[in-house]
Amino acid sequence: MITVSDGERLARAAISAIAEPGNKELGRALRQLGAQQTLDQIESGQLRAKSTVRWQARLSGSNPGRDLEKCRKLGGRLVCPGDPEWPSQLHDLGDEEPYALWIRGAGDLRYLSLRSVALVGTRSATAYGSHVAIDLANRLGERGWTVVSGGAYGIDGAAHRGALLGGGVTIAILACGVGVSYPRGHDGLYAEIIGEGLLISELPPGAAPLRHRFLTRNRVIAALAKGTVVVEAPLRSGAMNTARHAGELGRALMAVPGPLTSPMSAGSHYLMRECGAICITGADDVLEDLGAIGEPMIFVPREPILPRDALDETTRRVLDVVPGRQGAGPATIATQAGVDIDTALRCLGSLAAGGFVRRCERGWRLINVAGRSPRERAPPERVEG
Amino acid sequence: MITVSDGERLARAAISAIAEPGNKELGRALRQLGAQQTLDQIESGQLRAKSTVRWQARLSGSNPGRDLEKCRKLGGRLVCPGDPEWPSQLHDLGDEEPYALWIRGAGDLRYLSLRSVALVGTRSATAYGSHVAIDLANRLGERGWTVVSGGAYGIDGAAHRGALLGGGVTIAILACGVGVSYPRGHDGLYAEIIGEGLLISELPPGAAPLRHRFLTRNRVIAALAKGTVVVEAPLRSGAMNTARHAGELGRALMAVPGPLTSPMSAGSHYLMRECGAICITGADDVLEDLGAIGEPMIFVPREPILPRDALDETTRRVLDVVPGRQGAGPATIATQAGVDIDTALRCLGSLAAGGFVRRCERGWRLINVAGRSPRERAPPERVEG
Repeated sequence: MITVSDGERLARAAISAIAEPGNKELGRALRQLGAQQTLDQIESGQLRAKSTVRWQARLSGSNPGRDLEKCRKLGGRLVCPGDPEWPSQLHDLGDEEPYALWIRGAGDLRYLSLRSVALVGTRSATAYGSHVAIDLANRLGERGWTVVSGGAYGIDGAAHRGALLGGGVTIAILACGVGVSYPRGHDGLYAEIIGEGLLISELPPGAAPLRHRFLTRNRVIAALAKGTVVVEAPLRSGAMNTARHAGELGRALMAVPGPLTSPMSAGSHYLMRECGAICITGADDVLEDLGAIGEPMIFVPREPILPRDALDETTRRVLDVVPGRQGAGPATIATQAGVDIDTALRCLGSLAAGGFVRRCERGWRLINVAGRSPRERAPPERVEG
Repeated sequence: MITVSDGERLARAAISAIAEPGNKELGRALRQLGAQQTLDQIESGQLRAKSTVRWQARLSGSNPGRDLEKCRKLGGRLVCPGDPEWPSQLHDLGDEEPYALWIRGAGDLRYLSLRSVALVGTRSATAYGSHVAIDLANRLGERGWTVVSGGAYGIDGAAHRGALLGGGVTIAILACGVGVSYPRGHDGLYAEIIGEGLLISELPPGAAPLRHRFLTRNRVIAALAKGTVVVEAPLRSGAMNTARHAGELGRALMAVPGPLTSPMSAGSHYLMRECGAICITGADDVLEDLGAIGEPMIFVPREPILPRDALDETTRRVLDVVPGRQGAGPATIATQAGVDIDTALRCLGSLAAGGFVRRCERGWRLINVAGRSPRERAPPERVEG
């Protein structure tokens, strides 16, 4: 059995389509009742919440099965609380925890976000800000840290690109569906991110990038990453909102200084003066502030986070039959391991969350440092540990 | 009677010529024995200090009377601990308190340093750093704050110039004598500083700017000012040394952020990360960090720091005869007030330290806000308080 039932997943897909993300009343109901019963109570009007009528109105036009199918066609999946891939740090959002996450990409969200840092900033980045974002992300990527950002033009885009240039992994958390081309100029970047990292949204694949969704999205960026670095941001900006969330969630809050003559650095300086943000002068500072200095794994390529011995027998049997570079589909893996397909999928999920396997075009493959192409990782002579 | 006797002043002049500034053994002896007895003990070899022999050797070549005369010809004076003009915050230096200060300029050191802030930085300032230094100093000067710096090219020069441009007062603390033209390109600037503020040194008028004197000089900058702002400084620099002194003395320590790609801002960022320096984004931040926000005097032109009623009768009598714009010599003032010249000089010193009178070409004149030329102060429409 997979932890999250099909019915529960379908209900969460439906809820993500009818309600805006981060609704506290809904979040409370989901925790108390589960998704199927919450959905029933919305339909029957039994759930007394400010937005119940609006949710009911949207229910008739929604089609969660079609959304799930659309996502599957995009190579994506819906990950729910309770799935092995669900990052437990999102529980810190309490009643504002995402109902579910629509995900495209080869990486495992739980595993990749374990050592992740958000680099955020303004769309109207200066040459200086873009340079710093690329450089920081590049070096963090090289050291095996996942760079989280919002997929926008400016600092976000520079952060994603820098991580990929460093052979690192990056996660873009969108304010629209993962099937929407927005901003259109990032189609190519998103394709690269899907290949190496993750494209994520709280909303179904076709959801539009409405203005208020950027602000609610920011809490997920702040909660997912171990710390947030504001690279360049004016005083009133989405990045400042993300920083506020990071501070409230007790995540490391960092800021890149810049010329005090630049309004694009005013946000960073405000955070340093008024909010205790730590001044960042390079990737080493970020790692130090994340408590990662001395951590042996950060200077070596990413490896499984669990020893093989810690796996149960069934999971180990599944791991034993996952092929290397080529990959194989779950049915093939299930047959070879002598387990049913649900068990194979559950085990593969756990193995991905543990850093042993990853998704690929043909299904699943081993993560094997030695077997990786040079493009994926920094060349061996740069490994320090 | 003037507090510091002629013999004591002559002895301190001699000591400033034979010993490098900031010698702790000498400082301790001066506090315990006074200057005349300390000098006697150096001469007789009774003072057991590491450098006694070197001091004795220099004694024969020194001529404190000639130094004092040279200083007087430059329009200057020697100010000693005990003089009304001596700034009591220099006591915080303990055994490293200056033996005396050679001073040229119209201002009163004690009075001007009451609301003073040091702006320091590299000689190799960037256009950005110079711009920020001028702008900060200008606004601080406008608000009645004295800008203290080291008289060097780069940030120091920009700070002095900015203060003068803002109609403010500035103090340059030199690592050579106040009669030495160093750096030569600052002759014009020094002339302006003498006209409006103060040129100060621990060394006799002709002393050369030896390398080690810059470092010992820095402690006086840090101790004199209420706080120190590092505008632009590389990691290894004199400004970082001044910052260290400011921190150790418990003064406010502030730093101006800059591009992290600029080595000239690396010192500022280091101070923010490692030494608790506060990030400065403008003159208002400096005033806030100095605890000066809300202080009514900072937005109005400088006024006496004591009410007239607090003066003793003799001093009030002297004040009553000090003329306005024209000024008068101490002999004239003494005659008109009906006191002897020593009493007149003592009263004038106290009145200068209290912000009632200032030196001028013809002797002494009243500080009178209404009577000031527009060049000296910000125009009335800029006064906020």
